[in-house]
Amino acid sequence: MLATAVTEYLLSANQAFEMYNGLTQGAIASILVKGSDEQKQTYLPNMVSGRWTGTMNLTEPHCGTDLGLLKTKAEPQPDGSYKITGTKIFISAGEHDLSENIIHLVLAKITGAPDNVKGISLFIVPKFLVNPDGSIGERNGVSCGSIEEKMGIHGNSTCLLNYDGATGYLIGTAEKGLEAMFIMMNAARLGVGLQGLAQGEIAYQNAVSYAKERRQGRALVPDQRDPEAKADPIIVHPDVRRMLMEAKAFNEGARAFVLWGALQVDISRKAQTEEEREAANDLLSLMTPVIKGYLTDKGFEAAVNAQQIYGGHGYIREWGMEQFVRDARIAQIYEGTNGIQALDLVGRKLPANGGRAVQAFFKLVGEEAGSAKGDEQLGPIAAALERTNNDLQTATMWLMQNAMANANNAGAAAYPYMHMMGIVGLGLMWLRMAKASKAALANGAEDADFHRNKLITARFFADKIMPETNALRRKIESGSESLMALPAEAF
Amino acid sequence: MLATAVTEYLLSANQAFEMYNGLTQGAIASILVKGSDEQKQTYLPNMVSGRWTGTMNLTEPHCGTDLGLLKTKAEPQPDGSYKITGTKIFISAGEHDLSENIIHLVLAKITGAPDNVKGISLFIVPKFLVNPDGSIGERNGVSCGSIEEKMGIHGNSTCLLNYDGATGYLIGTAEKGLEAMFIMMNAARLGVGLQGLAQGEIAYQNAVSYAKERRQGRALVPDQRDPEAKADPIIVHPDVRRMLMEAKAFNEGARAFVLWGALQVDISRKAQTEEEREAANDLLSLMTPVIKGYLTDKGFEAAVNAQQIYGGHGYIREWGMEQFVRDARIAQIYEGTNGIQALDLVGRKLPANGGRAVQAFFKLVGEEAGSAKGDEQLGPIAAALERTNNDLQTATMWLMQNAMANANNAGAAAYPYMHMMGIVGLGLMWLRMAKASKAALANGAEDADFHRNKLITARFFADKIMPETNALRRKIESGSESLMALPAEAF
Repeated sequence: MLATAVTEYLLSANQAFEMYNGLTQGAIASILVKGSDEQKQTYLPNMVSGRWTGTMNLTEPHCGTDLGLLKTKAEPQPDGSYKITGTKIFISAGEHDLSENIIHLVLAKITGAPDNVKGISLFIVPKFLVNPDGSIGERNGVSCGSIEEKMGIHGNSTCLLNYDGATGYLIGTAEKGLEAMFIMMNAARLGVGLQGLAQGEIAYQNAVSYAKERRQGRALVPDQRDPEAKADPIIVHPDVRRMLMEAKAFNEGARAFVLWGALQVDISRKAQTEEEREAANDLLSLMTPVIKGYLTDKGFEAAVNAQQIYGGHGYIREWGMEQFVRDARIAQIYEGTNGIQALDLVGRKLPANGGRAVQAFFKLVGEEAGSAKGDEQLGPIAAALERTNNDLQTATMWLMQNAMANANNAGAAAYPYMHMMGIVGLGLMWLRMAKASKAALANGAEDADFHRNKLITARFFADKIMPETNALRRKIESGSESLMALPAEAF
Repeated sequence: MLATAVTEYLLSANQAFEMYNGLTQGAIASILVKGSDEQKQTYLPNMVSGRWTGTMNLTEPHCGTDLGLLKTKAEPQPDGSYKITGTKIFISAGEHDLSENIIHLVLAKITGAPDNVKGISLFIVPKFLVNPDGSIGERNGVSCGSIEEKMGIHGNSTCLLNYDGATGYLIGTAEKGLEAMFIMMNAARLGVGLQGLAQGEIAYQNAVSYAKERRQGRALVPDQRDPEAKADPIIVHPDVRRMLMEAKAFNEGARAFVLWGALQVDISRKAQTEEEREAANDLLSLMTPVIKGYLTDKGFEAAVNAQQIYGGHGYIREWGMEQFVRDARIAQIYEGTNGIQALDLVGRKLPANGGRAVQAFFKLVGEEAGSAKGDEQLGPIAAALERTNNDLQTATMWLMQNAMANANNAGAAAYPYMHMMGIVGLGLMWLRMAKASKAALANGAEDADFHRNKLITARFFADKIMPETNALRRKIESGSESLMALPAEAF
């Protein structure tokens, strides 16, 4: 949780550059959990210190989402190593000279393995082989075929990598590669959700500065006008406020949500009882796709709105705003597109263990909202949260009743469902923050302005964001018929 | 209307390049309506033939939206011309050698004029002065200070122009410059709405091709799977369909809507009775900001979703999808930001003539929906349209009751109100198209598939887009309190 809080700053400073570090941490996690003692000793100290960096190699030209199709081959060698041959694309931090070595984690199929998702293994393929004494050895058979020209994150070297009989070392059990890779992926998905927040936040901070300085037009309400000037700072205009408040309410709610998610990681690993660990793991599994999908969609939207506040200047490179938009865009795509996150949520996470996780979440939200409903200040926020939670429960019920008969109903509902759950998740965080700020004010907190502002922003989230769940529920309830009815040639 | 239909193709082919033409047409319109006979003879033939191009010069470094602040000066000369001095920025098609001359239309203040929006005049400032015989004369005192580095539309030379005592000729009446410029602006706003559609359409067409070819994963419903292959084309996946259908329903609805807008232009100019001309002009004035704002927001969204369908490939320049996103983005910003469009709608267009235009629109929608409600096939679409129209009417009533007491309520409502009206506008078009297709099928039309697909897409719009007005109405009804409550320093 602490690392998550710190990483947000690094991502706001430069997402593309922080990815060199983030991918290294993901590779460390996989080796820590699934690697042999020898592998840990050989690779981890230099990766943790930052002398060596890491990558993850999944995508190939013809497959990304559907890894069962992958063609990269691993041929067993007499010494227990493998010769890895194939082409990987979109490899972030794939080749560079920022570090002394690059430890590639590569998905491949061992000769004779099933040619589907069950035949995939995970390998360590270092750029430079490591000598027995730990020093850097000879260059391995992996090379950069090209650096991708992208829309954004230009600070990251996204590579096409050619593996030409490169020496690789199996991590963990053969044909359990996806399991090992998902250790990276789950951590990475929380990290990508954090990227959405980080871009939303830095774009917002810039837009706030501009909105306070740029004078254009007059406040609609006469007594809000600056009598000393010919125009007012644009922050007085309600439509500029709309964009700032939406970003602020999203950023602060999302920050609480992603930190809460990171807290579940910590609890799921370190809590004393199995019951606590299981409960935390349930919530974490359920919310990982929501944190990835909802936070990157809304972070992109916040960046777009922040750019909008600059008017024409937002479109000019010099001001830097358009870079936030271009950088934020990738987070909706990589580590599993947001559409895949939505399917993971509805198809896997929701029904897991008979719906145990989602039932626990509904109970949690229901209790928090119920306990605050009678309160004068918190009541409107709690009531709005209860309505959104009811929308989500109604949609969940609809899914249970209609997805069995026609799986396309689940597929059609997935995306709006993910957004609904994001709104309820952030709503829960806002109610908790409002409760905490109310209590702090009652206790005479020194930073009273901070707490009053939290209460106002919580109310804004209830007024302006929570109503969206109604429309999302109705979209879900209209099913998949008109969505799926057209033949492919009609498009 | 015909020109609008043709221009969509040009904009889809290359928005940046078509702008050279579009700006010329805007300049022609201003000179035609407000120019002297001599000005028309001097400039129009070569502009219409395409030998000369045109520009519009409004923005200065410190002012865009708030033109009252502009500093460019026009000093009267003994021969009736003016010396124009100042700096203009973001001038699309501002300097290039694609044409033999460039006719700049420039807003400036004549010496001694009021230093506010009422002191602005409009001038013709040609790049090359025109000799009495119509031939190209000497270079005028206007030069390109720099070409802006932008997020997109790289094919257009967006310039900073320095006017250094350049010779200019007043168009129309002094201090009535904004009125003359708005002849350009209103046409341009419809044209920019069309840009949103054009980018949404071309991005959609590319995404359709990709979705039919790219194979990844299995159809959720087993009998939709291709038994000959290891994976299905991604167009079988409901979440890919969601993005394609949303774009298709938007594009076709928006195309009808913008053509309907262009038809109102024609009727408002050419209808035989004053009554018809007035009614068309009412609807056109009301809908111009909606066509500009809603179509560019949704066109951008369609481009983003089309890019999303490509997964990681969508982020790579080579595929071309990210360019549609970058190009589409500008249309939300220029010709008055979409926030300004929303304010124009709520602050000026709605109350004009005691709400005559909006009442006529409600009546139109109500009658069309009412007449189709009992129909088995059209009924669900008509009923959904009636609900959205009711939401819009309720929001309008709320505005009438709450905007007088606090103008910030109107400012806070403006943006969601503009989107609601866009949904109702497209909904009206979809009901009309559905009616026409139903009638065509009943009459044994040859292209029956086309009409059946229209009916399905109309139903999709009713199922998946129209429900959004409920949430938008509720956002409006929550007022401006939580939006405006924070002091500026709290951001």
